[in-house]
Amino acid sequence: MQFTSDNAAAVHPALWRAMHAADAADSPYDNDALSRELDGAFSRLFGRECAALWVATGTAANCLALAALVPPHGGVVCHREAHIEMDEAGAPGFYLHGAKLMLAEGDSARLTPASIAAVIDPIRDDVHQVQPHAVSITQASEYGCVYRPAELAAIGAFVRARGLGLHIDGARFANAVAFLGCAPAEACAGADVLSFGFVKNGGMGAEAIVFFDPEMARVIRYRRKRAGHLQSKGRFLAAQILAMLEGDLWLDNARAANAAAQAIAAAAPGRLLHPVEANEIFLATSPAERAALRAGGFEFYDWGKDAARLVTAWDTNPDHAAALARAIARL
Amino acid sequence: MQFTSDNAAAVHPALWRAMHAADAADSPYDNDALSRELDGAFSRLFGRECAALWVATGTAANCLALAALVPPHGGVVCHREAHIEMDEAGAPGFYLHGAKLMLAEGDSARLTPASIAAVIDPIRDDVHQVQPHAVSITQASEYGCVYRPAELAAIGAFVRARGLGLHIDGARFANAVAFLGCAPAEACAGADVLSFGFVKNGGMGAEAIVFFDPEMARVIRYRRKRAGHLQSKGRFLAAQILAMLEGDLWLDNARAANAAAQAIAAAAPGRLLHPVEANEIFLATSPAERAALRAGGFEFYDWGKDAARLVTAWDTNPDHAAALARAIARL
Amino acid sequence: MQFTSDNAAAVHPALWRAMHAADAADSPYDNDALSRELDGAFSRLFGRECAALWVATGTAANCLALAALVPPHGGVVCHREAHIEMDEAGAPGFYLHGAKLMLAEGDSARLTPASIAAVIDPIRDDVHQVQPHAVSITQASEYGCVYRPAELAAIGAFVRARGLGLHIDGARFANAVAFLGCAPAEACAGADVLSFGFVKNGGMGAEAIVFFDPEMARVIRYRRKRAGHLQSKGRFLAAQILAMLEGDLWLDNARAANAAAQAIAAAAPGRLLHPVEANEIFLATSPAERAALRAGGFEFYDWGKDAARLVTAWDTNPDHAAALARAIARL
Amino acid sequence: MQFTSDNAAAVHPALWRAMHAADAADSPYDNDALSRELDGAFSRLFGRECAALWVATGTAANCLALAALVPPHGGVVCHREAHIEMDEAGAPGFYLHGAKLMLAEGDSARLTPASIAAVIDPIRDDVHQVQPHAVSITQASEYGCVYRPAELAAIGAFVRARGLGLHIDGARFANAVAFLGCAPAEACAGADVLSFGFVKNGGMGAEAIVFFDPEMARVIRYRRKRAGHLQSKGRFLAAQILAMLEGDLWLDNARAANAAAQAIAAAAPGRLLHPVEANEIFLATSPAERAALRAGGFEFYDWGKDAARLVTAWDTNPDHAAALARAIARL
Repeated sequence: MQFTSDNAAAVHPALWRAMHAADAADSPYDNDALSRELDGAFSRLFGRECAALWVATGTAANCLALAALVPPHGGVVCHREAHIEMDEAGAPGFYLHGAKLMLAEGDSARLTPASIAAVIDPIRDDVHQVQPHAVSITQASEYGCVYRPAELAAIGAFVRARGLGLHIDGARFANAVAFLGCAPAEACAGADVLSFGFVKNGGMGAEAIVFFDPEMARVIRYRRKRAGHLQSKGRFLAAQILAMLEGDLWLDNARAANAAAQAIAAAAPGRLLHPVEANEIFLATSPAERAALRAGGFEFYDWGKDAARLVTAWDTNPDHAAALARAIARL
Repeated sequence: MQFTSDNAAAVHPALWRAMHAADAADSPYDNDALSRELDGAFSRLFGRECAALWVATGTAANCLALAALVPPHGGVVCHREAHIEMDEAGAPGFYLHGAKLMLAEGDSARLTPASIAAVIDPIRDDVHQVQPHAVSITQASEYGCVYRPAELAAIGAFVRARGLGLHIDGARFANAVAFLGCAPAEACAGADVLSFGFVKNGGMGAEAIVFFDPEMARVIRYRRKRAGHLQSKGRFLAAQILAMLEGDLWLDNARAANAAAQAIAAAAPGRLLHPVEANEIFLATSPAERAALRAGGFEFYDWGKDAARLVTAWDTNPDHAAALARAIARL
Repeated sequence: MQFTSDNAAAVHPALWRAMHAADAADSPYDNDALSRELDGAFSRLFGRECAALWVATGTAANCLALAALVPPHGGVVCHREAHIEMDEAGAPGFYLHGAKLMLAEGDSARLTPASIAAVIDPIRDDVHQVQPHAVSITQASEYGCVYRPAELAAIGAFVRARGLGLHIDGARFANAVAFLGCAPAEACAGADVLSFGFVKNGGMGAEAIVFFDPEMARVIRYRRKRAGHLQSKGRFLAAQILAMLEGDLWLDNARAANAAAQAIAAAAPGRLLHPVEANEIFLATSPAERAALRAGGFEFYDWGKDAARLVTAWDTNPDHAAALARAIARL
Repeated sequence: MQFTSDNAAAVHPALWRAMHAADAADSPYDNDALSRELDGAFSRLFGRECAALWVATGTAANCLALAALVPPHGGVVCHREAHIEMDEAGAPGFYLHGAKLMLAEGDSARLTPASIAAVIDPIRDDVHQVQPHAVSITQASEYGCVYRPAELAAIGAFVRARGLGLHIDGARFANAVAFLGCAPAEACAGADVLSFGFVKNGGMGAEAIVFFDPEMARVIRYRRKRAGHLQSKGRFLAAQILAMLEGDLWLDNARAANAAAQAIAAAAPGRLLHPVEANEIFLATSPAERAALRAGGFEFYDWGKDAARLVTAWDTNPDHAAALARAIARL
């Protein structure tokens, strides 16, 4: 019973079907019929004109998105535990040609105008210090917590007032929207660019970079190719993404994952290190308790010495989730 | 009837099966069982210890391979019409942090020790000029021509004598081996690193970077992640590659593509701009002749004003190839 | 008798005086009184609003200038024998984060609209090929030849029509203006940025980057610091440059160097490989002839096997130049 | 009475004399007689074989030094208030091609093995996280505090045990040696590379990068040129450095600066925010007190809201220092 990572989950059958349907020859790269549908599909989803590019990974999505906002001599404010800082092997430094991540604090890996200001206000406005050019936040956050639309609006207003760009790492954007129950546009209010994740939510290898200013995408198309991310059979990536948007499959999948997480979280409210709002549960547990869970057939990662990270996915078996909940309750 | 690009071809059924079989949950990134088989599979194929990494594109494969050989202040000798120079949007400049491509001449986009020497001999050995660190050749070349083992041995000896590394861009390595009928190791003799292509040969989105010095792969694993090319569901890339190697499917596919190319080439030997040794035919044709072919239902790219580029693939319908041959003969 | 390089020449006494005068404490970096005078001084010289930054070397000047015009994924057209291509150790690749130099042909290392078009016209307007963003020419050229104002106007018009920027490497701009006898602005007509050299013309270690669009300088001030070129005692660089501009010392020095070159060139018009228009003479000579000159006490570089490069400077002793002319005539 | 910055100080007369003496023509770049003396001069000073390169600025020295130790995908541990982090405009990101600074804590901007371990121990040894490759410390620190030889030995042992390189930013190395009264080699024990500063200590524009492994310098000579830091009249930089080493002028100058700092510090021991061990005094003062000092004719920087930074230099007038001490005592 696997709660290690939503990256380990299966590909959704609808995506398999869509990929098979895309097998017939079409133009290479992103000149195929499916890739050309992306801008329209995301424009409809967000109710405004968008340009959307597929890439295979969240790291590529985040870094290409930031490349639209930050020059090589600039900086990006992000949370100290943001994925771009902790888990992307320095990819922002590579893609942004040495630009700097500026690390901010905040509960549950979320930022606020105040926590951003605490980082950028002390920066002298002279050529000796790297100047901030953008802020990157994660929706849902690295601890599975979700920014409310009003919080996003406040960040967006702050960021614009300071002349900065706003990027949202939406590796689990679907889970955030499912939690909020709002329009997708409200869940990323204020963003210039959104990395919209599908891989953790039933995809095989396709994420979307959604630019709310379509002009920004123009340069990034060159950057994508230059980074080796313009796949020659791009139709298979477009197929995955379009299948996800079709009939809001992405939301259904996220709701399933969130529901499984809630079922588990309900078993031990006192052990939760962060509110459970998406599909991740950080559970205070001793090594002995974790050993007991593993002995019961549950797989997951340790999170430091005193906690477990449990991740559900679109295909988490509800019986497994219920069994895990019982096992936790018994600890 | 499509002769535009082998990139437009379908995915081979055996790869579909292998990907479906890989759908069950496994560890993310390259910690899954299939990814861990790659080193062994390529070591067996080449009869020596190798380390192999999957990536989604040939551009990423080439540039990560070169990153193992060339420092940011160095240079890479390649043909003036090499893919890394002409068609990768400056990706080598990105991946190599500003290292320089040094352009050499040669018939049919192939290099020789003499053409390499013509580029590097005039370089002064001082700090004012970029010094060469590696040579990159393409097997089969951008004009579908194949280096013979003795030619590779001569290049390899020359390169080693000059203290340089040797990279082979093998986007169509399978077609070269199929043409030569030799052992795979002979078709890349002298190389330090091989970009072994599968996408043009029936894959969906997986190429292998094969390091003949396994130690070189150690650093490139970091570079791959840093470039956003470590896919979280890497098991699907490994599955494609292993399915290709299984029972030499890669060779069967390449033989089919080569055979279709030969059938076409035989129709008009006088029009061939380059020897047809792999799956590409460059055909001297007037605009009117190309219009006639297109009117007959054949799709392909113009190659300048006076030629057509025709590309066959593993799934080229032999009837289509025969029809094209007849149409060419009738011109 | 030294004709090796104008880089080997002495520092002009007026500059020594200016540097001594700047020794008194002032604000560090470029906040001192002298550095603040630069914009105005160059604006007066060129008769339009300019922003000017000092740096220590021509390589830094060229590369920071280009950084204002070319993004990392772009290209710069320059002559195959341009200093930025041949003698800067790949610095453009470093400063431009991997952007590409696109090599054009042209007599005496000079470009024309036609030779630029020959490079950029074949570039497909798609994401697979690096797109040109700027042209860089050298005034006077690497072979000591000077663009006439009408030639510059033609290049400028061509470049603007193609949406490109224009950089002029003016390491020997003074020699060009001295030769043309025109206003400085005419000698760099059409340029967006000029690297205005002083080191070869009697300076110690100060060049100016002159931006004809002052806004461009804003970003480059950050880039200069980021490149380690914002010297803390920048007042000594500003002092050199201002002393050069004072009373047109830069022109007097260049006229002296040019005159010495003319005196030498007149001795052997039939041996000149390029018109002598600045302070460099490329002289067809056999190894034996060069040995004879060296035996006569003249120092210079070989230029390949069949030529000598002779360079005069502001402080070339006219007697030495006359002696060299006689020695050449005697060959 | 200027206590703003040692960067604002004058150039020492002995250096002026040495630069004038170097005015005679010599080979350009670093092929002149003076530049060729550097390796020997530093080898004698440190009692071991060294290779030394001049550059114009401390930022260039630090970043080229680090480029010898850290690959683009690596990291450098430094203090949160290190100059490379706070005051170099992101130059390490530029020179190291996106490598990451990893920020450690420590009193008075000094590190210890424990504070370094606190940064690197939590880093997972996998490809998702940037791995440390070097540590950079500052001697004397950004708060004017000096590492004792035993402290350096402990850091050096720790760093070697972890397989890391050690760089010392010695912008004020002279002040540290003057304070310690030890051999220069003891004051940088354990370092692989030292940025040995002269500009703040009476130089005009020359610092030395001293490699204790001469082989490391080989690559950095290319990198220096590539960064535009190989000045064509390099003899003037070499002349400054050799004049500084001659008769230990560097030590005399540093002793003078340190003595002035001690004289000031003695006036108000209770106000010192950091021990005064070099030539910087951080003095707790209210805005009103700082206004009073300024009204008395003393110039200096505020350090936040509650402190002043006072810097002495080799040429600080002892009467001015005494006057400042009295003024502080009167506050």
